[in-house]
Amino acid sequence: MNLKELSNLLGLSQTTISRALNGYPEVNEETRARVLRAAEETGYRPNRVARRLATGKVGSLGIVMPITPEQPVDIHFAEFQSGLADECLKHDFHFVIMPAEREQEEQAIRDLVSSGSIDGYYIAYMRERDPRIAMAKSLPLPFIVHGRSANLAEDYPYLDVDNEAAFSEATQHLLDLGHRRFAMLNGPADLDFAQRRRLGIEKALGSRGLSLDPALVSSTVMTDGHGFQHMARFLERKAPPTAVLCASTVLALGAVRAIRQAGLEVGADISLIAHDDDLHLLRPEHFSTPLSTTRSSIRDAGRRVAERLIAAVNGEEIDAQQRELWRAELILRASTATAPA
Amino acid sequence: MNLKELSNLLGLSQTTISRALNGYPEVNEETRARVLRAAEETGYRPNRVARRLATGKVGSLGIVMPITPEQPVDIHFAEFQSGLADECLKHDFHFVIMPAEREQEEQAIRDLVSSGSIDGYYIAYMRERDPRIAMAKSLPLPFIVHGRSANLAEDYPYLDVDNEAAFSEATQHLLDLGHRRFAMLNGPADLDFAQRRRLGIEKALGSRGLSLDPALVSSTVMTDGHGFQHMARFLERKAPPTAVLCASTVLALGAVRAIRQAGLEVGADISLIAHDDDLHLLRPEHFSTPLSTTRSSIRDAGRRVAERLIAAVNGEEIDAQQRELWRAELILRASTATAPA
Repeated sequence: MNLKELSNLLGLSQTTISRALNGYPEVNEETRARVLRAAEETGYRPNRVARRLATGKVGSLGIVMPITPEQPVDIHFAEFQSGLADECLKHDFHFVIMPAEREQEEQAIRDLVSSGSIDGYYIAYMRERDPRIAMAKSLPLPFIVHGRSANLAEDYPYLDVDNEAAFSEATQHLLDLGHRRFAMLNGPADLDFAQRRRLGIEKALGSRGLSLDPALVSSTVMTDGHGFQHMARFLERKAPPTAVLCASTVLALGAVRAIRQAGLEVGADISLIAHDDDLHLLRPEHFSTPLSTTRSSIRDAGRRVAERLIAAVNGEEIDAQQRELWRAELILRASTATAPA
Repeated sequence: MNLKELSNLLGLSQTTISRALNGYPEVNEETRARVLRAAEETGYRPNRVARRLATGKVGSLGIVMPITPEQPVDIHFAEFQSGLADECLKHDFHFVIMPAEREQEEQAIRDLVSSGSIDGYYIAYMRERDPRIAMAKSLPLPFIVHGRSANLAEDYPYLDVDNEAAFSEATQHLLDLGHRRFAMLNGPADLDFAQRRRLGIEKALGSRGLSLDPALVSSTVMTDGHGFQHMARFLERKAPPTAVLCASTVLALGAVRAIRQAGLEVGADISLIAHDDDLHLLRPEHFSTPLSTTRSSIRDAGRRVAERLIAAVNGEEIDAQQRELWRAELILRASTATAPA
């Protein structure tokens, strides 16, 4: 039994039936009772089209998926998306993915919003003074920012990890172990999270009168290949680092390979701490030397972003401007040790 | 300048403008020339809404994303999706993802098709005599199957890898190296690709008068954890296998850990061949002992599925019923060697 058949059976319009089932006051009680009885008897369950007719909502969230030739598959994105999907499933929502190159991201959001195919959306891969925030504010649908944008007033709804605190704490721990020569394998230099992570290291070093040597910092998309390439380069220097901070366990995967290939040992010659988004496939405890990490689940972030967006779409958000800053946990395993003499 | 503003400026309906820009014959040449001139002068570029008005197409493909508690993030799915996204971007298409639990997959497809938010879709994670094929044939939109369904006539459009041939060839190679005791870390037993891979091994063994011991076969979702757990179990047996075939490099990741933990060496005590979907993050040549594989890019499959669907949506498909069977390549690296004496 679909809506059309039920409509024929009862001699009522599909809109009336949907409104009756969704509790709209325009439908008189006698009609509503008749519809409910028929729906029960025939086993009819309203589908998404019916819901759309009745509520004007599509039950759909919008995502712009960044496409870069350098990083064909971003596992961090996949992991975030799986959390989002989980939460969408709970609320009977789906989502629309608009692939876009970087310079087309704003247009992609406009297109999504004007297409009528979404009820809300999120923005991610934030940069400094990101123009998408002002744009999103001017558009008619609810949105949330995953991350933040430096040097803009924080007057927009967001969910972020306290990246500066995480990397500051990790650096402090390595300083306490006696390390003085630090390297950093970072994400792209224009992304907000990467800037804050670097700042965290620089502040912690600064508090002990040290600084981060720019020659020992790489800023790249976070692939295994880049981790390998830049770690190998750092190790060729006259005074190689004894401590390395990685913006992702994916970078650490390559870094560990480079360290081993140079005949050095992780957790003895080189201490390493990586940010762990809690990627399902890449468990820090499964590395040949289990990795010390700063951990915050990006899948949980996906879940929470969907939860807040769906609440906003349904008009349930208590404070749509909510600003949420998650703390990462510092977890120590075998990859960190006292600095070599 | 948006469509509405252009419409006001010219005193023409939005539909007429879209039709004019998209070359529809209903618009007379004088009007078309006027619209084109105005579009050029004002820098107007039609967006997706305009295209939808003009062509009746949404520029969108539908995907059902399976959600299982056992496998929160499926990297194979992420990799396929990235190929799909690449191709969508080329053609200015987006895609709609409907998360669904297994028993809701059929309803999810019906909902996608009836929602009006997609022009075509693909079906994946095929099972034997899969009821979704007959259903898809009865629905009004173009579709493609990624994979195949055994024991059904092959009269539907599909793209599949020749899984039986790949695993048969890999087994034959191991037989030629003198191996006689085989194990298999397979995907879920109800999935078509897993059944065909097992069949490939069984046929190759059968041709030498051997058979696959069911106690040395695992059928699970393809995670690192399952690879570890079942390989460890196989190694505890009185006569452990000397050769292992893995349905994914993800399973191999765990299997290699179990083998090393048992004090054995991959490529000496145990030979291993894994199916390699060419996952960006998991390169077989980066394993501590580089892995021999049967390789077929699942990202290329995503690209090709999108290419064929978009062609079908645009009415360009030469043979909409096209059946495409890709051959995997057998690539030998250090994980395969002569059977131990």
